[in-house]
Amino acid sequence: MLFKVEMKVNIPHDIDADVINEIKAREKAYAQDLQRQGKWRHLWRVAGSYANVSIFDVADNAELQDLISNLPLFPYMDITVAPLCRHPSSIHEDDR
Amino acid sequence: MLFKVEMKVNIPHDIDADVINEIKAREKAYAQDLQRQGKWRHLWRVAGSYANVSIFDVADNAELQDLISNLPLFPYMDITVAPLCRHPSSIHEDDR
Amino acid sequence: MLFKVEMKVNIPHDIDADVINEIKAREKAYAQDLQRQGKWRHLWRVAGSYANVSIFDVADNAELQDLISNLPLFPYMDITVAPLCRHPSSIHEDDR
Amino acid sequence: MLFKVEMKVNIPHDIDADVINEIKAREKAYAQDLQRQGKWRHLWRVAGSYANVSIFDVADNAELQDLISNLPLFPYMDITVAPLCRHPSSIHEDDR
Amino acid sequence: MLFKVEMKVNIPHDIDADVINEIKAREKAYAQDLQRQGKWRHLWRVAGSYANVSIFDVADNAELQDLISNLPLFPYMDITVAPLCRHPSSIHEDDR
Amino acid sequence: MLFKVEMKVNIPHDIDADVINEIKAREKAYAQDLQRQGKWRHLWRVAGSYANVSIFDVADNAELQDLISNLPLFPYMDITVAPLCRHPSSIHEDDR
Amino acid sequence: MLFKVEMKVNIPHDIDADVINEIKAREKAYAQDLQRQGKWRHLWRVAGSYANVSIFDVADNAELQDLISNLPLFPYMDITVAPLCRHPSSIHEDDR
Amino acid sequence: MLFKVEMKVNIPHDIDADVINEIKAREKAYAQDLQRQGKWRHLWRVAGSYANVSIFDVADNAELQDLISNLPLFPYMDITVAPLCRHPSSIHEDDR
Amino acid sequence: MLFKVEMKVNIPHDIDADVINEIKAREKAYAQDLQRQGKWRHLWRVAGSYANVSIFDVADNAELQDLISNLPLFPYMDITVAPLCRHPSSIHEDDR
Amino acid sequence: MLFKVEMKVNIPHDIDADVINEIKAREKAYAQDLQRQGKWRHLWRVAGSYANVSIFDVADNAELQDLISNLPLFPYMDITVAPLCRHPSSIHEDDR
Repeated sequence: MLFKVEMKVNIPHDIDADVINEIKAREKAYAQDLQRQGKWRHLWRVAGSYANVSIFDVADNAELQDLISNLPLFPYMDITVAPLCRHPSSIHEDDR
Repeated sequence: MLFKVEMKVNIPHDIDADVINEIKAREKAYAQDLQRQGKWRHLWRVAGSYANVSIFDVADNAELQDLISNLPLFPYMDITVAPLCRHPSSIHEDDR
Repeated sequence: MLFKVEMKVNIPHDIDADVINEIKAREKAYAQDLQRQGKWRHLWRVAGSYANVSIFDVADNAELQDLISNLPLFPYMDITVAPLCRHPSSIHEDDR
Repeated sequence: MLFKVEMKVNIPHDIDADVINEIKAREKAYAQDLQRQGKWRHLWRVAGSYANVSIFDVADNAELQDLISNLPLFPYMDITVAPLCRHPSSIHEDDR
Repeated sequence: MLFKVEMKVNIPHDIDADVINEIKAREKAYAQDLQRQGKWRHLWRVAGSYANVSIFDVADNAELQDLISNLPLFPYMDITVAPLCRHPSSIHEDDR
Repeated sequence: MLFKVEMKVNIPHDIDADVINEIKAREKAYAQDLQRQGKWRHLWRVAGSYANVSIFDVADNAELQDLISNLPLFPYMDITVAPLCRHPSSIHEDDR
Repeated sequence: MLFKVEMKVNIPHDIDADVINEIKAREKAYAQDLQRQGKWRHLWRVAGSYANVSIFDVADNAELQDLISNLPLFPYMDITVAPLCRHPSSIHEDDR
Repeated sequence: MLFKVEMKVNIPHDIDADVINEIKAREKAYAQDLQRQGKWRHLWRVAGSYANVSIFDVADNAELQDLISNLPLFPYMDITVAPLCRHPSSIHEDDR
Repeated sequence: MLFKVEMKVNIPHDIDADVINEIKAREKAYAQDLQRQGKWRHLWRVAGSYANVSIFDVADNAELQDLISNLPLFPYMDITVAPLCRHPSSIHEDDR
Repeated sequence: MLFKVEMKVNIPHDIDADVINEIKAREKAYAQDLQRQGKWRHLWRVAGSYANVSIFDVADNAELQDLISNLPLFPYMDITVAPLCRHPSSIHEDDR
């Protein structure tokens, strides 16, 4: 089951540089692991911003919550979610 | 070059049913043709709405304008566009 | 799988009274049928408005889209959807 | 008398971890106590967020204010309230 | 139990003048009747607008919905509602 | 001359507790004094929030500014103001 | 007593040209009469729009409502009002 | 003196096709004449929309109002204006 | 050439009192100097707020930027600007 | 390929003056270098603000992201981006 997830990162200007760099490193590893598992199906940068557009493929809403709330950058992001499903005009079997 | 395109359809309540049905039929044919050409890379329905989330793959901004402004439903849609590019944490070569 | 669905009804002032009354009658029958099936789990009126707050219980996003897009009043409503899941502090087993 | 209450939690990034953890523990105990009393009728997580959708069942507006303003996380939440009542199409006697 | 109710009137420009004048006459009679019953406690015009700020005194949310949805101008108004209760600094016993 | 005034209190999380408690005590005394003078005609809590709806009765705009800008909590509040006047359907002589 | 009033004109596209031209002629005469009386103290066009910024000088809120609600274009305008008073740094005695 | 002007075109769906086509032809001729005069310095399409971003070069605010209010499509456009001036980091003498 | 300028002051709660008082004193002197020069034509307080509505009379956009960006409180204000010009219904020669 | 980029600068009030001045110096050098390369085609100040309107000329979305995310002030700016293309009524060959 697919969801569009948009994440906008807002790093507080007075946070310790080492702390945030360590969080970003964990975020990258986490994101790549979820991509390898097929759960984070697409991950694009929005050009001109510190934001991304993503497509998640999860079993249900609970798994979506579990994956997103465990993002290391979760406390520093504005996140919006939209449930997706197959479009009647789509010719792509996998865009369900 | 990829763009996220979101389309929300607003059909006026007093439009002639035959007119709008003919437009919708042309919209479907047009959307499927662009998908077959690889220019409309993804097309998802937003669950619970008369709206879609799409990914377009175009040569440049001019082609994006050309493809979108020729949508048969173009006069009846609110459309938002976001330019995308490769995310540094993406492992998918094709999510450029 | 649960979703909060909020519906705000906007009837055009120049629509034929018989047409809209027939649509409302079908809407009521449809809503009560889905409630009896357990798919429309809760339906509340928002006091002071022509709007409702609902909880849907569906198999997946596709079923949510199917149920909502077939509402007879669908063309006359602004609808927002939020995916829900079990809250870690909930004591109600069924509020999953 | 029912109210929909939506709570979005915003923890300041520079708050002391022990302080906030103690507040969260009291929040959980308080929420579970109100659920056991039947005053906090439903509590759902909004998937992909640090937010909830709740249904409160109170005697009047004053009790709603009393219950919400005593939430340990009250100073750290954006809260919206909507009064609910029985929908004419509802078949659930208790969704009053 | 008190509620603040704000009503903004939007008369469609192409509505029949006799129809709307008859509705306005019924609105006035209805509003004055509810004031005499004590249920529509205050009614002020917002200066420079076709809008009002009102205070309703009702038994519960259901009565609020009943009174507002029966306003003759209900289909032509944007209405917002806020539940009120006694303020701890109020010295007015009746501003409960 | 009447004005609706809405005040939403936002206390910074890192302010000194003694400082803010002293401000709140002065706010309460000030509000009760203005109520006794008849200038702060109504003061209601908005249920579920740290906010109030108030009706001020002042000689002119300058007095409104004087009363509001001297609120001890003024630097910590979002305040909106709407000028009121007698509604043609009001039956209450004093709701001028 | 001064108020800033901003008016944005929205003429429906399907209104009869003679009807609206007659309304505009009455609007101009009415505006010039109020200016001559000193009640409509300033009237500026916002460059690039069909909108104005005005300063009204009235006895009280009731007169403001009376003057604005009698504008011939009143049903076709979005109007916002802000109460003004003397600024402590103003050197202009008449900008009260 | 430069202004950024953004125009979003909204053609009513029930307008006569010949009427609107004649307006569009006049709009194009008018826009090209102003470009030749140097007053409409830049005109870009926003890709994926029926909107443009323009730079006007005018003597003063009054000329800006004159040029924009005479656009044949003026009644069918949402227009926003921002005054521009030379940026201290600009190296382009003409971007004044 | 006239511009409407609206300024909303937001003083950070943790700024040093002496620092901000010195800034406010310079702001007042600067505002009064510009008023004496005729460049800051009107300055009104918005009643019930820490905000003003002003009319500036400048040679061009560059002078507007110069005057506003040198306001001592500039870093602590939300500022909006609207270009004004003579209204065709104005009878005041100087409201150009 | 052209993009309109709007940047609004928000400097935290408690940032070290030397740190921010060094960042601003680097920003200016970076902006002037990109202008000399022809990639930052236009740069205007929005009069009355700490903001600019810019036109970028880049090879693709990825280059836009690269140029913007390397702005020294990037962490302190709200940035919006709109893809542009040739307008059918433009007479300027280079406004592609």
